[in-house]
Amino acid sequence: MRVAIIGVGCSKFGELWEKSFREIYLEAGLKAIEDAGIEGKEIEALYVGNMSSGMYLNQEHVAALIADYAGLAELGIPAVRVEAADASGGLALKEAYMAVASGIHKIVVAAGVEKVTDVGDAMKIASSSADQEWECFAGANLPALYALIARLHMKRFGGKEEDLALVAVKNHKNAVNNPIAQFRREISVEEVLNSPYIAEPLKVLDSAPISDGAAAIVLASEEVARKYTDTPVFIECAQASDYVALQNRKDLLTMNAVVKAAREAYRRAKVGAKDIDIAELHDSFTFAEILEYEDLGFAEKGKGYELIREGVTEIGGDLPVNTSGGLKACGHAIGATGIRQAVEIVQQLRNEAGKRQVDAEVGLSLNIGGTGATAIVTIYKR
Amino acid sequence: MRVAIIGVGCSKFGELWEKSFREIYLEAGLKAIEDAGIEGKEIEALYVGNMSSGMYLNQEHVAALIADYAGLAELGIPAVRVEAADASGGLALKEAYMAVASGIHKIVVAAGVEKVTDVGDAMKIASSSADQEWECFAGANLPALYALIARLHMKRFGGKEEDLALVAVKNHKNAVNNPIAQFRREISVEEVLNSPYIAEPLKVLDSAPISDGAAAIVLASEEVARKYTDTPVFIECAQASDYVALQNRKDLLTMNAVVKAAREAYRRAKVGAKDIDIAELHDSFTFAEILEYEDLGFAEKGKGYELIREGVTEIGGDLPVNTSGGLKACGHAIGATGIRQAVEIVQQLRNEAGKRQVDAEVGLSLNIGGTGATAIVTIYKR
Repeated sequence: MRVAIIGVGCSKFGELWEKSFREIYLEAGLKAIEDAGIEGKEIEALYVGNMSSGMYLNQEHVAALIADYAGLAELGIPAVRVEAADASGGLALKEAYMAVASGIHKIVVAAGVEKVTDVGDAMKIASSSADQEWECFAGANLPALYALIARLHMKRFGGKEEDLALVAVKNHKNAVNNPIAQFRREISVEEVLNSPYIAEPLKVLDSAPISDGAAAIVLASEEVARKYTDTPVFIECAQASDYVALQNRKDLLTMNAVVKAAREAYRRAKVGAKDIDIAELHDSFTFAEILEYEDLGFAEKGKGYELIREGVTEIGGDLPVNTSGGLKACGHAIGATGIRQAVEIVQQLRNEAGKRQVDAEVGLSLNIGGTGATAIVTIYKR
Repeated sequence: MRVAIIGVGCSKFGELWEKSFREIYLEAGLKAIEDAGIEGKEIEALYVGNMSSGMYLNQEHVAALIADYAGLAELGIPAVRVEAADASGGLALKEAYMAVASGIHKIVVAAGVEKVTDVGDAMKIASSSADQEWECFAGANLPALYALIARLHMKRFGGKEEDLALVAVKNHKNAVNNPIAQFRREISVEEVLNSPYIAEPLKVLDSAPISDGAAAIVLASEEVARKYTDTPVFIECAQASDYVALQNRKDLLTMNAVVKAAREAYRRAKVGAKDIDIAELHDSFTFAEILEYEDLGFAEKGKGYELIREGVTEIGGDLPVNTSGGLKACGHAIGATGIRQAVEIVQQLRNEAGKRQVDAEVGLSLNIGGTGATAIVTIYKR
């Protein structure tokens, strides 16, 4: 059964000191329900992507809590929290997609939420996506692990720190026109290059922030979708996994989970990489976006740098990437990011993206957990 | 499409100081795969129930980690962690069931795992299933919340502390014959009554321990199941939710999520409460088992005490409950419990339960998150 997204909503992303976990997910959820034009009682199931409410807030059981605060407790619908590090949002999307594609449910909400500013050691928590015993106990954290991959890739294929900087510059430029973005200001290559290293070659301005934020989408079967909207956006979604610890991967320069998830998503959607008009990628670090160009088939292995150098992935280029500003500038609200990506692609395909609007019929989003042990690829069509 | 369980496996439950998180889930998973007679490469997806690996071990992203350590990383299969407090295992079972029932996957592993002994404040973590802002910040923890319900129920319907004690006595007696159980020794009513209160009327010996443990099951479509086994156990599964904070529930004496999930599971399985021959219930506290008798329809509201007083739910009674020893005596490895319950029912329906064997054709398991904001009911048939 074909699955459509019929409603989308996002909170602002950023350091939302004045708002609680509950407030931000309610904001996103209500926007999505209003956008879809459905009533709350029509929702048959709720899938929530959240990475670490336990460590951030000492609160588990958050899907039931969200259903409760969203006024759905009387309905008693199944409320399912899923977690795959910062791919938790994408995972919620994929499980919700399966629940509708299977015919089990007709209308399902997928949401992602993370509240990170209320806690001390956010980097320690973010690094809990890596293998604690084989990576973190040895002193590595998430930036260090990505830096290892980046160094090898740059050495092998001639990448420069300036290339990485171009990704940050592009994504900041895009975020200027995104009302929900955390950093709505342009930055220059020089600013990126002059920012301090956090794990060479990655600098502060190569790194996505860790943000508060929530996003929600309403999924429906095609038949139901047609009743509610003239602009359903149809999706196909696939997930794959890989070794968690980098040491076990045969080739650090390819994210196998991305390759596998993309292959399956392309197959289901009956499109190829060349058919993609717009993409939201997982630029937790600028380098990751370049690696993902390659593993998604947008560029040959080692040629990802050319796309950013030649402006292909800018707004106005052949394949705009991260028109939202991406994780880097829209903000990375961990478990919310995968859903936030879907919101951007849907708004673009519906021609509702305002000043950042591009011409697109087929979109793609890629959400990654940690250094790539989980990848979720979603293809969107008008 | 009908869904069958074709393989089951459990680690020992208890204080497993000498074993790591990784070792216990590997043990359970390999037993289940061996029991099913499948090869690892036939597994199409993995669902993992785990409540708090973040807070317990600073490790999130555990489904990918488990796939990795189980040797499935090369396959790159979807690995999905789900969480609903101590109903996480049941939730993994339900999501895996949906993945097979829908025809999307043919062979899926559902596992549950929790490693709790490596951390300090286990009660604080267990209480993260409750509403932090409205319950825990006010000083309540999980035993206190259950005690509130128990006091009201006992007052309204004439329950005695001796009645609660009988549940603990029964479940300890059953655990003597369960090789994986944490407490393989009988206790007396007097011992229970003489144990210290933790939240009146609930005492230490009314309370399930917080245990280490892992359990895994292999689910398959009927067609595939018939190839691998002559004793498939077919399941139907349903989930429901309720208000998290007790203050919002209209009636403390009924767990609405249990009532709703049971109604749906009975409907799907085309059976009623009277058809159930054996059940594994969620006796996180002895009182909970009595409340669940009522909400599942085994007894009328207020009459649950009669079942335990009259021996109906003993081995040898009309409806044996918690032949495994239940959470109280088999141990409560939080996210593993929902799968561990399935293992017990499958072993009973296959006549492989050794000295605790009962005569049963239709089984039921109930897994609850916190004080009942999540409930998952599964019906099993030979």
